[in-house]
Amino acid sequence: LVGIGDDAAVIRPRDGADLIACCDLMVEGVHFRTEWARPSMIGHKALAVTLSDVAAMGGSARFAMISIALPARVSLDFTDELFSGIFDLAAAFGVTIIGGDTSSSIGPLFIDTSVIGDCPSGRAVTRGGAQTGDTIFVTGRLGASALGLLLLEKGSSVESEADVMRHQAMIKHLAPQPRLELGRALAEAGVATAMIDISDGLSTDLWHILEESGRGAVIRADVIPIDESVISLSGDLQSDPLSLALGGGEEYELLFTTRGEDRARVFELSKESGVLVTEIGEIVSGEGLQISFGGKLEALAPSGYEHKM
Amino acid sequence: LVGIGDDAAVIRPRDGADLIACCDLMVEGVHFRTEWARPSMIGHKALAVTLSDVAAMGGSARFAMISIALPARVSLDFTDELFSGIFDLAAAFGVTIIGGDTSSSIGPLFIDTSVIGDCPSGRAVTRGGAQTGDTIFVTGRLGASALGLLLLEKGSSVESEADVMRHQAMIKHLAPQPRLELGRALAEAGVATAMIDISDGLSTDLWHILEESGRGAVIRADVIPIDESVISLSGDLQSDPLSLALGGGEEYELLFTTRGEDRARVFELSKESGVLVTEIGEIVSGEGLQISFGGKLEALAPSGYEHKM
Repeated sequence: LVGIGDDAAVIRPRDGADLIACCDLMVEGVHFRTEWARPSMIGHKALAVTLSDVAAMGGSARFAMISIALPARVSLDFTDELFSGIFDLAAAFGVTIIGGDTSSSIGPLFIDTSVIGDCPSGRAVTRGGAQTGDTIFVTGRLGASALGLLLLEKGSSVESEADVMRHQAMIKHLAPQPRLELGRALAEAGVATAMIDISDGLSTDLWHILEESGRGAVIRADVIPIDESVISLSGDLQSDPLSLALGGGEEYELLFTTRGEDRARVFELSKESGVLVTEIGEIVSGEGLQISFGGKLEALAPSGYEHKM
Repeated sequence: LVGIGDDAAVIRPRDGADLIACCDLMVEGVHFRTEWARPSMIGHKALAVTLSDVAAMGGSARFAMISIALPARVSLDFTDELFSGIFDLAAAFGVTIIGGDTSSSIGPLFIDTSVIGDCPSGRAVTRGGAQTGDTIFVTGRLGASALGLLLLEKGSSVESEADVMRHQAMIKHLAPQPRLELGRALAEAGVATAMIDISDGLSTDLWHILEESGRGAVIRADVIPIDESVISLSGDLQSDPLSLALGGGEEYELLFTTRGEDRARVFELSKESGVLVTEIGEIVSGEGLQISFGGKLEALAPSGYEHKM
C-alpha cells in the first residue's frame, strides 16, 4: 500500500496467511570479497541467502528490505550493479523491495537483507517435526560451493576461468539459487515434516533437525549426491569429495524429511519444479547421526564449517 | 508461532490489520562512536530510531530483527550490554525480538534493526495527506539532540557530566524515546492527516510532508518549542537556539498535521500519553515553507543536517 519513500512501508497481509520473517547479514572480508565476484553477484547472494531461509520454511517470499553500508572507495557503477543484482533476483521471485537504508561505511561493505514471506496458516515447516521412520531428502548436488570457495581462495577468478567445472563450482558459491518453488510446494502439499536449508553443511544442518526433532538419523554414504565438479576437481585440491559434500556450507539446498507414504509425492513435486531430489537416509529413534558405508555405521559429527572464511 | 532458532520466524497477523515494515542502519564512525555512549545506549538507539518510523506511520510496533557485525576488539561484556539495551527497549514497548543475524566485522560495529508493526486496516498515516488549512503540530522540545552531538564532538562525556542541561542534551542525542503511544493514538483516532518523525531536522522533514502532500506551509518562529538545554547552553557553543531547533536532526519527535476541528482532540491525546504537543503553523495552498517572525515572512530552506557526523 505504501512503498519506499515514507517512514515505513505498509503492506496488507493475505487472508489466512502466516507471515515468515528473517534476515541475513553479509560483511565484506567475512562473507565475501569484492575482488571475487561481480557486484551483481554480491547483491544476488545477499538476497538469495535470505530467500533461502523463507524456502526452508516452505513459504512464498513477498517483500524485502535492504540495508547497505558503502565504503567511500566503491564507485557509483559498483553500487548500481550491486543493486541490480538484488532487484533482478527479487523480480525473478516476485519479491517487492519495500524499503531499506543506505549509509556510508568507514570500513567494509555491509549488506543486511530482511525478507517477509507468507504461507497458508499453520503450514510453515520448522526444523522440529521429523518423526521416526521419515525419509531424509536433499535437493541438488553437494560440495560445489565449498569447492568454489577453495578455488577462489587459491586465486581462481570466475571471469577469466575457462574450465567449465571450475567455473560451475565458483558460481555455485558466488550466486546460489534459493529453492523457493520446491520449498513452497512441499509445504503446501503438507509432505515435509521438517526442513532446513544447507548453510553450514549437510552434517551440521541435519544435526539441527535432529536436535529440534528429538530424533536420530542414519544416512547412506553411497547415495549422497555429489556435484560433478567436486568429483572432477577435488583430487587436484587434495580434498575428499564426500567430505566436501557432507561438510561444505553455503549450499542453500533444502534438506527435509517426509513420511514414507509421501515419497512418491516428493518425486512428483521435484519433477514439476525441475529440482533434483535425492533420498539420503532415514530418521531413527534415539539421538545422533550415523553414516553407513555399505552397512558399516560410523558416527558423523556436525563438522560443517560455520560460514566464515 | 516460531521464534529465534529456526530458519525464519513465523508470526500470525492480527485480523484486519495492515503491516508496517521498516529498517534502520547504524554504522560506527558514521552514526555513533563507542566512546560517546554506554553499549546499552547504542543498542537502545539502534532500535529506537526504527521504532520511531513505526510511530510516524501511527502503528504499533510488534516484532523486531537485529543484525549486528561485531569487531574483534569489542568485549563480551560490551556485546551483552548492547543487547540488553535493545531487549530492554523492546520489552518497554511490547516488541518481540523474533530473529536476527550476528557476524564478525573486520571494521566498524554495524547494527541494522528491522521492525514489523501493524495498524488497523487503512489507518496508516503517510507523509502525503496534509490539506490546505491543516494545523501543524510537533511533539516535545527541539534542538537538544543537535546540541548534545555538538557537546560530544567537543569532548563532553555523558558519564562524567555534572551539569544537568548538558547531560540532558547528550542523553537526548544518545538515547531518544520513540513516540509510539501518541503516534498510534493519533492514527487510531483518525486525527493525523500526515505524519513524519524528525530525523533530518524540522525544516527538512516538514519539506518532506509538503512535497508529498503538494502543499506549502507557514510556521511561526515565536512558538517553535525549543528545549531548555538549548536556550541555556547555545550561547556557550555560539549556536543560535532557533537554528538548532529548526535544523537539528535525530530528534525522533513527531511532526504531524491535523484538520482544524481535530485540534482539541490532539491536545486530549497529548495529555493521555504525557507527551507535549505544540501548534507551530498551518498548511497553505501552493508550495514552499515560510517562517513568520512577528508577521514578517521569510523562506525556510530544508537545511536540516542529513544524519551524518
